[in-house]
Amino acid sequence: MAGNRHGDDTRERILAAAESLFAQHGYDATGIAEVCAKAGVTKGGFYHHFPSKQALFLALLHRWLEGVQASLQGGLREGESVPAAILRMAGILSQVFAAGSGKLPIFLEFWSKATREPVVWDATVAPYRQYRDYFARLIQRGIEEGSFQPVDPLVVASTLVSLAIGLTLQGLLDPQGDDWPRIAQESIALLLQGIERKEVRP
Amino acid sequence: MAGNRHGDDTRERILAAAESLFAQHGYDATGIAEVCAKAGVTKGGFYHHFPSKQALFLALLHRWLEGVQASLQGGLREGESVPAAILRMAGILSQVFAAGSGKLPIFLEFWSKATREPVVWDATVAPYRQYRDYFARLIQRGIEEGSFQPVDPLVVASTLVSLAIGLTLQGLLDPQGDDWPRIAQESIALLLQGIERKEVRP
Repeated sequence: MAGNRHGDDTRERILAAAESLFAQHGYDATGIAEVCAKAGVTKGGFYHHFPSKQALFLALLHRWLEGVQASLQGGLREGESVPAAILRMAGILSQVFAAGSGKLPIFLEFWSKATREPVVWDATVAPYRQYRDYFARLIQRGIEEGSFQPVDPLVVASTLVSLAIGLTLQGLLDPQGDDWPRIAQESIALLLQGIERKEVRP
Repeated sequence: MAGNRHGDDTRERILAAAESLFAQHGYDATGIAEVCAKAGVTKGGFYHHFPSKQALFLALLHRWLEGVQASLQGGLREGESVPAAILRMAGILSQVFAAGSGKLPIFLEFWSKATREPVVWDATVAPYRQYRDYFARLIQRGIEEGSFQPVDPLVVASTLVSLAIGLTLQGLLDPQGDDWPRIAQESIALLLQGIERKEVRP
């Protein structure tokens, strides 16, 4: 157990060092030797945890996506309507803005690498498709519970994911340019208003 | 005149060569010598047009933004309502998807550089703020003409810009993942529905 904990700790130190160096100098300009020096591990220790720099990069991507996933996984709460749940999830974006501060260069590097390396593409694009499908099921449920008009769930889900990506990117690139958590909340509220089932008065 | 045309032609060849090399290998990995070789110009010819690699990079950014700007500049047409104009502009995104195909690595590099170099940050962020302000004026006009509820024009404008950025990014990263031009049209239509003035029946 102590050995495992030590191993986890080393792995975490390597990830933190890589995250900081990649953000500062970029992925290409950062060598494994520098990551080892910053993390205080030997090359042997490094390769025990990661077979390559790309593996390290993918581990960072997974770690970040797991955080988003965990925030969403709660799903619908007891007695909560779908619109209320989606608005609550919009609040997660505030955490993304806070947690992502300073990490934008790495997110961009994920996408940039994804355009050149199929393995990274799979790891980058698959989660967005998953988020879209997750929200499509949620919208479908919202239609069934009578909250939404009979919209195309996939279109609404793609809209939500695109909006979240655009808000995140702008919020990280230009944090002073707007009150992004408020914009996130209100823009998603606007979108939901557009698909809400209007009460029919007899 | 012939001399100017020749100069413009050289400048254009340098820009095209840089665009292709940056997309393929990245900005950092591309040297001015390679750009010159691909464009078939001497170093002297290069420096006549661009004082540095960064200046070349900024010229590419400006050229791309000018295209978007030109598409928007038409503004409102005679007798056109604001919602109709915005939906028409949503169609521009289809052109962005088509024109941007293969250029995503460079767009990402613009943002990535923007996080590290203040000059690039200014050139990258200023246009988004301009788009937002442009759409805010348009939404304000939509309220005045009676098309929209009395919403906060800046919130709606930020939403539109974020949505456009997110759609562009997803459309370029995962072109096969969805029918992006349709998603763009329908998602902006949904958003407009959310702020439309509902007819009040007496």
